[in-house]
Amino acid sequence: MKFMDLLCELISAARGEIEVDLLIQGADIANTISGEIHKADIAIHKGRVVGFDCCSAQEILDLDGSLIVPSFIDGHVHVESSMVTIPEYARAIVPRGTTTVIIDPHEIANVMGLNGIMYMLKSSMYVPLNVFLMLSSCVPATNFETSGAVLDTTAMKKIIGHKQVLGLAEMMNYPGVINRDHVLLEKIKLAGTKRIDGHCPHLTGKDLAAYIVPGIKSDHESTSLSEAAEKLRKGMYIMVREGSTAKNLKDLLPLINPVNSRQFLFVSDDRNAADILNEGHIDFMVRTAILEGLDPILAFQIASLNAAQYFGLNDLGAIAPGFRADLVALDNLVDLHILKVIKDGRLVADGGRFLAKLKMVPRPTRSKMRIANIDLISFEINAVSSKARVIGLVKDQLTTKSLVCDVQPKDGKVESDINRDILKMAVVERHYATGNIGLGLVHGFGLRVGSIASSVAHDSHNIVVIGTTSKEMLAAVLAMKEMNGGLVVIRDGKAVARLKLPIAGILSDMPLNFVADSIGICIEAAHDLGCSLEDPFMALSFLCLPVIPELKLTDKGLVDVASFDFVPLFVRDQEIGATS
Amino acid sequence: MKFMDLLCELISAARGEIEVDLLIQGADIANTISGEIHKADIAIHKGRVVGFDCCSAQEILDLDGSLIVPSFIDGHVHVESSMVTIPEYARAIVPRGTTTVIIDPHEIANVMGLNGIMYMLKSSMYVPLNVFLMLSSCVPATNFETSGAVLDTTAMKKIIGHKQVLGLAEMMNYPGVINRDHVLLEKIKLAGTKRIDGHCPHLTGKDLAAYIVPGIKSDHESTSLSEAAEKLRKGMYIMVREGSTAKNLKDLLPLINPVNSRQFLFVSDDRNAADILNEGHIDFMVRTAILEGLDPILAFQIASLNAAQYFGLNDLGAIAPGFRADLVALDNLVDLHILKVIKDGRLVADGGRFLAKLKMVPRPTRSKMRIANIDLISFEINAVSSKARVIGLVKDQLTTKSLVCDVQPKDGKVESDINRDILKMAVVERHYATGNIGLGLVHGFGLRVGSIASSVAHDSHNIVVIGTTSKEMLAAVLAMKEMNGGLVVIRDGKAVARLKLPIAGILSDMPLNFVADSIGICIEAAHDLGCSLEDPFMALSFLCLPVIPELKLTDKGLVDVASFDFVPLFVRDQEIGATS
Repeated sequence: MKFMDLLCELISAARGEIEVDLLIQGADIANTISGEIHKADIAIHKGRVVGFDCCSAQEILDLDGSLIVPSFIDGHVHVESSMVTIPEYARAIVPRGTTTVIIDPHEIANVMGLNGIMYMLKSSMYVPLNVFLMLSSCVPATNFETSGAVLDTTAMKKIIGHKQVLGLAEMMNYPGVINRDHVLLEKIKLAGTKRIDGHCPHLTGKDLAAYIVPGIKSDHESTSLSEAAEKLRKGMYIMVREGSTAKNLKDLLPLINPVNSRQFLFVSDDRNAADILNEGHIDFMVRTAILEGLDPILAFQIASLNAAQYFGLNDLGAIAPGFRADLVALDNLVDLHILKVIKDGRLVADGGRFLAKLKMVPRPTRSKMRIANIDLISFEINAVSSKARVIGLVKDQLTTKSLVCDVQPKDGKVESDINRDILKMAVVERHYATGNIGLGLVHGFGLRVGSIASSVAHDSHNIVVIGTTSKEMLAAVLAMKEMNGGLVVIRDGKAVARLKLPIAGILSDMPLNFVADSIGICIEAAHDLGCSLEDPFMALSFLCLPVIPELKLTDKGLVDVASFDFVPLFVRDQEIGATS
Repeated sequence: MKFMDLLCELISAARGEIEVDLLIQGADIANTISGEIHKADIAIHKGRVVGFDCCSAQEILDLDGSLIVPSFIDGHVHVESSMVTIPEYARAIVPRGTTTVIIDPHEIANVMGLNGIMYMLKSSMYVPLNVFLMLSSCVPATNFETSGAVLDTTAMKKIIGHKQVLGLAEMMNYPGVINRDHVLLEKIKLAGTKRIDGHCPHLTGKDLAAYIVPGIKSDHESTSLSEAAEKLRKGMYIMVREGSTAKNLKDLLPLINPVNSRQFLFVSDDRNAADILNEGHIDFMVRTAILEGLDPILAFQIASLNAAQYFGLNDLGAIAPGFRADLVALDNLVDLHILKVIKDGRLVADGGRFLAKLKMVPRPTRSKMRIANIDLISFEINAVSSKARVIGLVKDQLTTKSLVCDVQPKDGKVESDINRDILKMAVVERHYATGNIGLGLVHGFGLRVGSIASSVAHDSHNIVVIGTTSKEMLAAVLAMKEMNGGLVVIRDGKAVARLKLPIAGILSDMPLNFVADSIGICIEAAHDLGCSLEDPFMALSFLCLPVIPELKLTDKGLVDVASFDFVPLFVRDQEIGATS
């Protein structure tokens, strides 16, 4: 329908001159604009709210006794963390009341660059979910690893003007910003008047101000009240995060009051399939916040209007004439069960059941694992000394310890030492078949047999594998190649559990509950191998990320994050004092 | 300074690596973001706030004991109502704490079209005042009059992309919108994602929704609590107005609470020179609102941050890193006297004294009065019957009554009847020298001798004159031509008081206090002629505006606003029943 015709029809509908498409009767509405909960019929036409007065309608939906709120907006999310495609993500979160997401396609961008970003945009075309995008600002995260793509200013220029692109995603490289890295400042310049999201854990004082000055106006990394309070005072929007690993909602809630609440958004950042299924999405945050004592109308504003206003989405986040008819019907203010979800005036979820038809778009090209020929020798670690650096897992943390341990080479080779839980680890480059393999040692997984591997390995998503023997590790990498990426558990050279992630090696093409179940099966199989970690694949996926301390392994080698440089696997005797 | 160099220097300054330009010490600040009043030193560099931490500074300003707030933003103002140029307007309002205005150059656009708008933008280049512009949407207001220009979609297209243009100004023709006038809808389409301000007095129910649906998101015409409450519920931003004629602040204040306050802005709309001088500007609204019980931090948000957020001005409205250093220092929270005003980091007003140097731009071309040859005969009213329509003034209102009165023609001509206060009135076209003269009769001015005239005559600003004789009226129009527009009081054929308005016939090039004094002198002179109105020139200026009921006169003739059509001056006997 042409713009002018649509405008005319909407005006006619608002005036009651023509029958509207839908009239919702009998409900209370949470009016995020006027800050009230009040009774109102909602007239909807061509996907928009056209008024509160009773009109003649094609269809009447009686929601007497329910509370209608604007549907939820996730202000910052890496959909890839759920390991499903956008349509499947929609199937999972729309019944939870989220109908708008601001995605940062950082993971797929690291694998596929602009093609990956375009794939995310394309696959959002036919879903009952508004997908807006913040351009990943730090691809690759570092030069210590081989990523699938580099998203430089030239590449970003091609897409910054896209109507779904709202700005620049989390500027993770905060040291780069405050040290005036020109490449980063060029990206900031490119954003122009669009939003630039921040990412600055524990940054404080003058450095925080220096980071904000170029126009970085939000942060989702606050974990304490004092951290968020300082960022707020210095003008930032506080994206309150409730992810799978980082859960900050309850800690930050006490900061919110009616006079500053417009500065807060709810975001999920990284939320895995199981948590979405079991707890929910933004609805979980709204429910928890209200239970913790937040004024419900503030909670609904934070969950919708605030994000809309921050991102300049002027027709989202409220129920009023001209706004898109994206609504959630709740049973009441106590239980906050979601009865129905309406997107652009259509019922898309009812009682948790997703009703819309989904259209999948073809998988992107260049999704295959490109691995150079490897064999058992590829996994051999030649002993240089009897002391080696070992990555030490820290329970429930993404950080690791940099350990130095004695090793007992056999025939000049170091093998996994099962009894001391020092296992061999490899990172196999898989984007260009360069043949790069980083070799290292890790403590804390507790495998007694077999191996586990993943092509989800932040941020470059090479293949990371740990195993009890080179043979089991080789089997894992070959299985990974055959699967085109995913998670795999190997025992006696055979895959005993796996989740295929054929899209860029990081996304499944199956529904979220399948993914959650499969991950569960993989974890269980890893436990059967002797692993004691609650989620060994989560731990595995962060072993390669050289921006989180202390010791990480990439396809290019071992990285000491504190010195921000490569270090050798073996420690010469005279060095020990300095490193242990 | 190049963008990248500036960015680098600001970051350095924020980190304390270099001396900052200015450090303000010892004050409390009203933090409109965090909603607190807290102590903070303010480091300023290159016109921006760069932090709160103590740095080494070139200059230190000790403001111990004062309260620093973001300087004020007037969200909707016709500068022309003050009858001064932008630089002189700045001289008047900057010491009052306003450093940003969103202007609607509706009056000068009606006289000079795009040239007038460009003149306003140009004359804002060298003032310590941020001037943003909403494009006048209804020029001319009606087709019943000869305006100096037509601002059609083609003309608007040329300027809508200008960086100071934030959208479309007050869409006054609300009947046109809800009746789907395509010319108006094309203008709305042109605005794209930019803001569209509304103007819809007393509009309610379905018609209000129909008006809002196309994206008209604000209104400044609410005069009652219930009217504003309905507009708020339907999603509008409420611009609370305290003009010279319309004063709505006290009536609307009770609607504001912390949960909805972000939807409110303060605006002056039409505020004359005397009121700015005697009461103030946005500072007057802040002071009054706090005195009436509004939480001061909400008042400061409404006076700054809210307008900035509504218009997407992301670096205005708060005191925090990256924001422009536009600040006001107040003595305390009770008296709210303005001590100092800082604009882009420079002290521009101190103790009410304006410190900046102003640079005037040349007057626009085409400013002259273009009047066809006129003589005494031009003012002759030939009697057609003994009953004539007379415009009846209503005390303190812009509306008029449509009266029918007996007239006593002499030699077939109707003259001013001083004893019954029925005076002759003329509207002389002055843009194209068409020779158009509208003739009529008016009751309520009370002149016993002389005449008064004005080239400020909404909205087309032709010359409006009333007088006791044709001779006095002719003298007034000739004086007006010689002055190139303004206000004039004639007695015995001579100008006894006048204010020249040589810029477009509506603006002086003198300072605001000169204008206020001159208007005072003109009013006094009019009182000496017998006029009993408090402000006869205000009344005069609205006699031509055919969108305000009931009877108005333009250069094309008498307009009956109810029937929205021309009517003859004389009533035939059989008509009387229908019109009286």
